[in-house]
Amino acid sequence: MNHAEEDFIRVTDGEIGLVAPKDFRSSKEFTFESGQTIPEFSLRYEAYGDLNSKRDNAILVAHALTGDHHCAGVHSLHDRKPGWWNSMIGPGKPIDTNRFFVICANCIGGCQGSTGPMSIDPNTGKPYNLTFPFVAIRDMVRSQKILLDTLEISELYAVIGGSMGGMQVMQWAIEYPDFVKRIIPMATTWRQNAQAIAFDEVGRQAIMQDPKWLQGNYAEGEGPDVGLAIARMMAHITYLSDRGMERKFGRRRPTGKGNRYSFDIQFEVESYLRYQGESFINRFDANTYLYFTRALGYFDLAHSYGSLDKAFQNLKCKALSVGFTSDWLFPPEQNREIVLAMLRQGVRASYTQLDLDLGHDSFLVESDELFNLVRDFLAS
Amino acid sequence: MNHAEEDFIRVTDGEIGLVAPKDFRSSKEFTFESGQTIPEFSLRYEAYGDLNSKRDNAILVAHALTGDHHCAGVHSLHDRKPGWWNSMIGPGKPIDTNRFFVICANCIGGCQGSTGPMSIDPNTGKPYNLTFPFVAIRDMVRSQKILLDTLEISELYAVIGGSMGGMQVMQWAIEYPDFVKRIIPMATTWRQNAQAIAFDEVGRQAIMQDPKWLQGNYAEGEGPDVGLAIARMMAHITYLSDRGMERKFGRRRPTGKGNRYSFDIQFEVESYLRYQGESFINRFDANTYLYFTRALGYFDLAHSYGSLDKAFQNLKCKALSVGFTSDWLFPPEQNREIVLAMLRQGVRASYTQLDLDLGHDSFLVESDELFNLVRDFLAS
Repeated sequence: MNHAEEDFIRVTDGEIGLVAPKDFRSSKEFTFESGQTIPEFSLRYEAYGDLNSKRDNAILVAHALTGDHHCAGVHSLHDRKPGWWNSMIGPGKPIDTNRFFVICANCIGGCQGSTGPMSIDPNTGKPYNLTFPFVAIRDMVRSQKILLDTLEISELYAVIGGSMGGMQVMQWAIEYPDFVKRIIPMATTWRQNAQAIAFDEVGRQAIMQDPKWLQGNYAEGEGPDVGLAIARMMAHITYLSDRGMERKFGRRRPTGKGNRYSFDIQFEVESYLRYQGESFINRFDANTYLYFTRALGYFDLAHSYGSLDKAFQNLKCKALSVGFTSDWLFPPEQNREIVLAMLRQGVRASYTQLDLDLGHDSFLVESDELFNLVRDFLAS
Repeated sequence: MNHAEEDFIRVTDGEIGLVAPKDFRSSKEFTFESGQTIPEFSLRYEAYGDLNSKRDNAILVAHALTGDHHCAGVHSLHDRKPGWWNSMIGPGKPIDTNRFFVICANCIGGCQGSTGPMSIDPNTGKPYNLTFPFVAIRDMVRSQKILLDTLEISELYAVIGGSMGGMQVMQWAIEYPDFVKRIIPMATTWRQNAQAIAFDEVGRQAIMQDPKWLQGNYAEGEGPDVGLAIARMMAHITYLSDRGMERKFGRRRPTGKGNRYSFDIQFEVESYLRYQGESFINRFDANTYLYFTRALGYFDLAHSYGSLDKAFQNLKCKALSVGFTSDWLFPPEQNREIVLAMLRQGVRASYTQLDLDLGHDSFLVESDELFNLVRDFLAS
């Protein structure tokens, strides 16, 4: 560590500061829910705080569709973008790294360092692309369990996540009832409704009908950027809310854009969306987008276990479910239904609905209400 | 008319039956709100019922973004697809062609027979494409007025339309207060909010970033079909509602689609959306889609007239505004605001909100509640 880095850490006292991702490699064959296998896999992950001697103070954070393992701290002086949940995780923060060992892994099938469609298939020496097995939420959970077992973690103090992360949270509690003590699923659903399935299908079609997609066999850096950006722009609208967008953008025009009659950017919200699309293609892989949206669509706890109640019948954890009034992608009602089913099964579960105006993305927002909820639940 | 056609008309007694579109040509220069001009223009329109001797029983129907002049009757034995508002318009129907002369024109800038980007520019002998002037809602109205003047219509008994049609309806009343006696704007807005602008921008980007768009200079039949279909699929979701889609599709799987693990169609809603996209590219022009969505975005009665109240201060018509509870594209509140502003200006206006579950498209649905509303208002 050089002087500049030391200085940086000093000024960010109270923050996690510099972190380095780690790579976990499993040389054992992994069988997906679909029955398909891969001979080995790796997961890129980050961990903050220290594991105690009983190895029972671990909190697993599960990321959303386009999230990754980098959920807190910064990677370097030159890449000071904090992790996506940096406001939630850190010393003295709601997920307190002075007390907990916090771990987050890029999901299997992902594109941020874990094994996924971009990875080389050892059997062919070529990228998997669409020969990669279909990924289910359960596969994300089961592969992470192998990582935790290797770290000799004895139990999970809590699992927490929003959206696709919330699906993993529930799946963790179902799959490993003795291992998981507390869960906090947020802004999630036990199964997508038709509208959410429909939006994901449009995103996939935008990618798959892009002539550069090539049935998934594009070279790195030559992918279906147009389709992926369109998918992202559209999806991004579904992550916000009418009210929040109106407050943030309204009908404001960008300064210096004088020509009222043009197909160029005319409203600030257009500029914002284009930026979202353009920055996304630099950090995300189109095939992973296809796989993960399919994982979202296939996820259906009622179908997998006979009913939502049956899905939860063996749970041993406590649960806090958080829905957001302005979330129209995975509406609050769907989050409430999770808790109602758990309560019918005798699970100690509670539901809280927060009226933040950022829509589905509200779980990512800096909110004292949300922070206090999480802090209090983890203290219980 | 041959025997088969006569038979067809007989069996469809109570319906308008066969209709033929007409073409109106204006050889005078037309100046758009933008200041741009075209040397001549034509409007394709349909009319049903008879104009009375006072020429004061005309009802103008204004179509939505992807609608056209064909709003009632059928075109031929071989094309029996009824007009888009055939349930509303006809002998004895809410817009009663036994009593009214009903007329609907494809908007200027359109692609269904009226002058638009696909039309040949007389000055160059080539299609206008993107040299076509920017189209405002006011241009649609003013060009239709020229048609009505030619038909020597003395006043409009009513103007009625939903969505973009509803914008035209309000613009009619503002622009020609002495000419317009009654208006029924439905499922519309006096200005789009950021979310609606955002969805339209994604649609335009899908088209404009399609490599076949060629800055709008694609040849007929070789246009940006992929982008246009994506735009349509996405927009179609915004025309429906979560509740309506859940009722209509839910998570149902198409029969015979056995492979659970596939990027092909896995849910009925996906099949429906793809069909919507594919059928749209056969009937709609991508450049018109760009122009009309810009017309929607630019429309802002408060900005154009200083305030919404000022926009309505010279109105002489009666007004009935209809909003739909499940419409989240142009939410009921925006329809209610229209009436509140009119009432403040002394306009005899009323607002009704209907709880149909088809979302924005509810105005197109066969609903006795809606039919009775329109019938009663037109009788007043």
